[in-house]
Amino acid sequence: MDQLKEKMRQAAVTARNTKPLVPSVTNTITNTFVANAQLAVGGSAAMVFVPDESVSLARAGNAFYINVGGIFPVYEETLPAVVRALSEARKPWVLDPVAVGIGKIRTSILSLCKEHKPTIIRGNASEIIALAGLWGLHENHTSTVRGVDAVDPVSAARTAAVALAKWTGGAVAVSGATDLVTDGAAVVLSHGGSHFMEKITGAGCSLGGVAAVYAAVAEPFVAALTATALYNHAGRRAGETAKGPGSFNVHFLDELYKASADDIADNPFEIEEA
Amino acid sequence: MDQLKEKMRQAAVTARNTKPLVPSVTNTITNTFVANAQLAVGGSAAMVFVPDESVSLARAGNAFYINVGGIFPVYEETLPAVVRALSEARKPWVLDPVAVGIGKIRTSILSLCKEHKPTIIRGNASEIIALAGLWGLHENHTSTVRGVDAVDPVSAARTAAVALAKWTGGAVAVSGATDLVTDGAAVVLSHGGSHFMEKITGAGCSLGGVAAVYAAVAEPFVAALTATALYNHAGRRAGETAKGPGSFNVHFLDELYKASADDIADNPFEIEEA
Amino acid sequence: MDQLKEKMRQAAVTARNTKPLVPSVTNTITNTFVANAQLAVGGSAAMVFVPDESVSLARAGNAFYINVGGIFPVYEETLPAVVRALSEARKPWVLDPVAVGIGKIRTSILSLCKEHKPTIIRGNASEIIALAGLWGLHENHTSTVRGVDAVDPVSAARTAAVALAKWTGGAVAVSGATDLVTDGAAVVLSHGGSHFMEKITGAGCSLGGVAAVYAAVAEPFVAALTATALYNHAGRRAGETAKGPGSFNVHFLDELYKASADDIADNPFEIEEA
Repeated sequence: MDQLKEKMRQAAVTARNTKPLVPSVTNTITNTFVANAQLAVGGSAAMVFVPDESVSLARAGNAFYINVGGIFPVYEETLPAVVRALSEARKPWVLDPVAVGIGKIRTSILSLCKEHKPTIIRGNASEIIALAGLWGLHENHTSTVRGVDAVDPVSAARTAAVALAKWTGGAVAVSGATDLVTDGAAVVLSHGGSHFMEKITGAGCSLGGVAAVYAAVAEPFVAALTATALYNHAGRRAGETAKGPGSFNVHFLDELYKASADDIADNPFEIEEA
Repeated sequence: MDQLKEKMRQAAVTARNTKPLVPSVTNTITNTFVANAQLAVGGSAAMVFVPDESVSLARAGNAFYINVGGIFPVYEETLPAVVRALSEARKPWVLDPVAVGIGKIRTSILSLCKEHKPTIIRGNASEIIALAGLWGLHENHTSTVRGVDAVDPVSAARTAAVALAKWTGGAVAVSGATDLVTDGAAVVLSHGGSHFMEKITGAGCSLGGVAAVYAAVAEPFVAALTATALYNHAGRRAGETAKGPGSFNVHFLDELYKASADDIADNPFEIEEA
Repeated sequence: MDQLKEKMRQAAVTARNTKPLVPSVTNTITNTFVANAQLAVGGSAAMVFVPDESVSLARAGNAFYINVGGIFPVYEETLPAVVRALSEARKPWVLDPVAVGIGKIRTSILSLCKEHKPTIIRGNASEIIALAGLWGLHENHTSTVRGVDAVDPVSAARTAAVALAKWTGGAVAVSGATDLVTDGAAVVLSHGGSHFMEKITGAGCSLGGVAAVYAAVAEPFVAALTATALYNHAGRRAGETAKGPGSFNVHFLDELYKASADDIADNPFEIEEA
C-alpha cells in the first residue's frame, strides 16, 4: 500500500510538472467542466468532434479521453477512427460509456471498443454492468441503464468491473458512494466525496477526463486510483463548506487545484483481492 | 389560491421524492445550466441530439424538454421524430421557442409543434408573441425577435399567451420582470427574481427544463407556476448577496436546491381572469 | 495616450448603454462563458451553428464573433457563408483562430478569412504566428500549435501580429502574460491578469467575444484594447481573492460586470511604435 501511495504521489506531481496534452471527444453538456478539471490537475485540454482533427490529436496527445454522452451524427465516423488511431499509436486512453445501451451509434462504438481495449474504463455501476454485458463478459447480472444516472450500487458492479479489467489488461473505475478501482487482480475501495456530486452534471465525466491526464504519466491502475482518490478528497472538502450544488461546483474545482500529492495519496482506501 | 398553493407544494415535494427522468433536446450554450437546475429540484437530466436516442428517451422519460436555441442540422430529423413520439406516448413536454422566426429548421419545427400541442410553452414576451403569430392564433400584434433577448414587455404578450394556452389546452409561461403563467382561463402574475437573471445565459432555458421536471409530477398549469415561483424566489434570494453575474449564478443554483415547498408556494403572486 | 483612454471609456460606456447584438459561431466548450462575458459588459449574445441562421444574424447583428475551436461538420458551409455575409454587409467581426493548423475544415476557413479581412484577430502567441504563416505574411518564424494552449511567448508573435494588422487594416490582440494589441502602426503592451486565466477554459475565447461587443461601438484598435484592458483589470482583481480556478471564474465574471469605464482606461499599458 505504501508503494501504491508513492506511485499516486508521483502521478499527481508529474501531471502538474509536465502538463500532458490530453484531447477528448466528449459531450457538450459537461465539456467545460471536463476541461476545467483537466486544467486544474495540470493537464492541457482540447475537445474535438470531426474525424481528421480527432485522429491528429490522438496521435499528438499524451493520452486521450472518449466519452459517449451526447452523441452527434459525426461521431459515427470520428470515434471508430480515433479508437483505431489510439490503438495503432499505443496511446493510453480512457473510455466513459455514458448511457450505454441507448442508441445505435453509441452501441456500435462501444462494441468496437472491446477489441481495442481502453486503458481505463470509468463509469457508474449501471454503466459498468451494462458494458460488461454488451461485451459478453458478464452473463449473470443485468442492468437497465436509465438515462445517465446509476440505478445500481457500486458493489453490484464488482464482478463486471473485474471482468472488464481482465479483458482489457487495464483498469476499471466505478463511481458511486464508495468508489471501486480494479486492475483485474486487486480491488481498491476509495472513500470520500459528497452527496452533492450527484447534484452537479459532469462529476463523473470530468473524473474520466482527469483519469486520462494521469494515464498520460502513470500506469492504468495508478492513474485510475489517483483520479478517484483526488475526487473523493476534493468532494469531501468541497462538501464541508458548500451551501448547495452551485457553491459545491466552485469549491470542488478549487479543491482539485489545491490538492497536494499527499492529500491524494492519503485519501482513505482499502485493497482487497479481486 | 390556497388550493393552488397546496398543489405547488405537492409538485415541489413529489419531484424531490420521485426523481423523474426528464430528457431534453436542448442547446449547447445553456445545457449545463439546464441539467444542473433540473438536478437541483430533484429531476434526472439527460441531453440527446440524434433521432433514435431522442425517441427512445421520449418514451422512457416521465416528461421531456425541447428547446430550439442552437439548432444543429440533425435537429431537422430529431425534433419531428421526438415530437411525434411524445404525442403518441402522451408524455408531458415543454417547448421553449428560443429565437422563433430565425432559420428554416427552427421555423419548420415550431410550425409542426402546433398540431402536437406542447403541454407547457415557456418563452420571453417576444417569443410568445411571435409563436402565436407563427401559429396564426394572434393577428393583432407583431413582435420582431432580436437574437435571443426579449424586446417586448410581458404585458404585451398576455393575449398571445392566453391564445396559445387555449389552443394547446396546456399552460404558457412568459418570463420577464413580472412573470405571467396562464392555462387560458386564469392568468397568474408571479413576482420576484433579479435583474441579474438577464445577465446570465440560460436563466430562461433552465426555467423551461425545471418546468418539465414539474410537468412529470403535476398538471401543466401547476407545473409552470411552480417552476416560475421557484425561479422568482431563488432569483430574489440570490440577488440579495450576489456581487455580479458570476456569484449570482452560483447563489441561484444553491437557492434552487435549498428552496422548500413553502418557499415556492409562498412566493408572491396574483390570479386574474384571462 | 489620454485620447486613447478617452476612447476606451467611451467604448465601455456605449456598450453598456446600447446593448449591441453580437452573435457568434463559436465552440461548444466555452460558449457559455463567452455569452456570460458578453452579457456582463452590456452586449446581447446569440450563438448559432447552421448557415441560414448565421447569415441572418450576421446581417442583423451590430458585430459578429467567429471562433474556430470545436469545429462541427456544418461549419464547412456555415463559416464561409457567414464570412461573406459579414464582408458584404461591412459588419465588424472578430476572428479567433483557435488551434490553427489542425484539421482540413479549420484550415480551409482560416485561409478564406485572409481575403475577407477580419476587423480584429484575437489569439494566443502560437496561434497568431501560425495564422500569419498560413496567410503567407510571415516567413521567418514558425510555431507548432499544440492543442489549444500557447507554446510561444507573446513577444515572439509581435512581428506576426503587426503583419496581420497591416494586412487586414484592423487590429490584432495577442493574449499572454503581457498582452499585445496592434493596429499595424502602434503596439500597445497591456498589463495585469492572473495566472489563473490559464487554468480556466474560455478566458481567451470570451476575450474575443467581448472584443466583438466593443467592435460594435468603437474602431477596431480601441475595441481590441478596451477588451484586453478590461480582461487584465478583471483578472488581476479576481486573482486577489480567488482560492482556485473555480472561485476565480466566478470572481472574474463579477469583475467584468463591475468594472467602470475608468477601471478599464486606467489599467496599465504602454504604447510603442510597431
